[in-house]
Amino acid sequence: MTTKDRITQVSIQLFNDATVGEISTNHIARAAGISPGNLYYHYRNKEAIIRDIFERMQAEFEAVWLTQSSPVTLADLQGALRRSFEILWNFRFFYREQLALLRCDPLLKQRYQDIQALRFEQQTAFFNQFIRDGVIRMPSEPEKLRQILTAAWIISTQWLAFLEINGEQISSAHHHQGVKLIFAVIEPYLISSNNREPS
Amino acid sequence: MTTKDRITQVSIQLFNDATVGEISTNHIARAAGISPGNLYYHYRNKEAIIRDIFERMQAEFEAVWLTQSSPVTLADLQGALRRSFEILWNFRFFYREQLALLRCDPLLKQRYQDIQALRFEQQTAFFNQFIRDGVIRMPSEPEKLRQILTAAWIISTQWLAFLEINGEQISSAHHHQGVKLIFAVIEPYLISSNNREPS
Repeated sequence: MTTKDRITQVSIQLFNDATVGEISTNHIARAAGISPGNLYYHYRNKEAIIRDIFERMQAEFEAVWLTQSSPVTLADLQGALRRSFEILWNFRFFYREQLALLRCDPLLKQRYQDIQALRFEQQTAFFNQFIRDGVIRMPSEPEKLRQILTAAWIISTQWLAFLEINGEQISSAHHHQGVKLIFAVIEPYLISSNNREPS
Repeated sequence: MTTKDRITQVSIQLFNDATVGEISTNHIARAAGISPGNLYYHYRNKEAIIRDIFERMQAEFEAVWLTQSSPVTLADLQGALRRSFEILWNFRFFYREQLALLRCDPLLKQRYQDIQALRFEQQTAFFNQFIRDGVIRMPSEPEKLRQILTAAWIISTQWLAFLEINGEQISSAHHHQGVKLIFAVIEPYLISSNNREPS
């Protein structure tokens, strides 16, 4: 593991357990067992660490949404959603504090918007594959597919924050509930032979 | 308009246009045209103002979700959703910074959780009325109705933040898009004679 790997790994854990505002680069250096000077050699500030973490998170999402076996099955969709919730859980500080983080860092905001547009295209392609393979019915208008994907996007990125706001002790067991929530939205669009929710 | 009304009205506007953290009680007093001492006479701190704003917002939501004509129609549902998005827009700072606000004020957090539980019951009753009046099909299990309401809840409270994150200049025209998003989720559950999305 490189020093940069260790810094990002430790930062993710600290950010997840507190809030980003509460964690200084000094905290991070101490937890990583390195000097502040060593940390600054790798990252000039906390924003740079967060941007690097964002890229690492996106590499994981990329692996989920670019993998398309053919023909795709409902199990592929369930697997992709479950894996997405794991990533959202591992990097939960990001979506929890998203608006504030993007507000503070215009560079990150631009990058986020570009990536989100790309991810939206990938998910559309992913769902179109399901439509082609007859797992999902074609929504009557393309606008409808966009709405369903937007709904699924908002639900998945905000699910953990929703639980936290409601005082739930979040655990990885909640991923499964998140997948079921997404399925409640897309289930009516599944063709009937596949019309089964995850058990 | 009472002095308290003026303080809360001015605060909502300032919070909406910036972030809560950027606005001090001195800013609020100045914008309301009163002295800081006068403001403190009515509210001991910013948290007290936010709690009062929260109650005012909830009174508006209460009016939406307790009004049940009978028999209910799809137009009633559209009206209730549209009115909800207006309230979310008028108090947009709250859901935008929800997690941070609740984290900073345990009193507000407890009140929020109690109110949310109540609101969830009201919305369930509201939807059950639609099921009874034959506008919506009964989801196969009560768990499914709960999932759909949870999905609709997350989408509606996070819709404006989603737009803001994506760099959209939000206007009240986006309410209609929000209503359509909720309809994309519930539309498949509408019985076919009513199966029309808002135009």
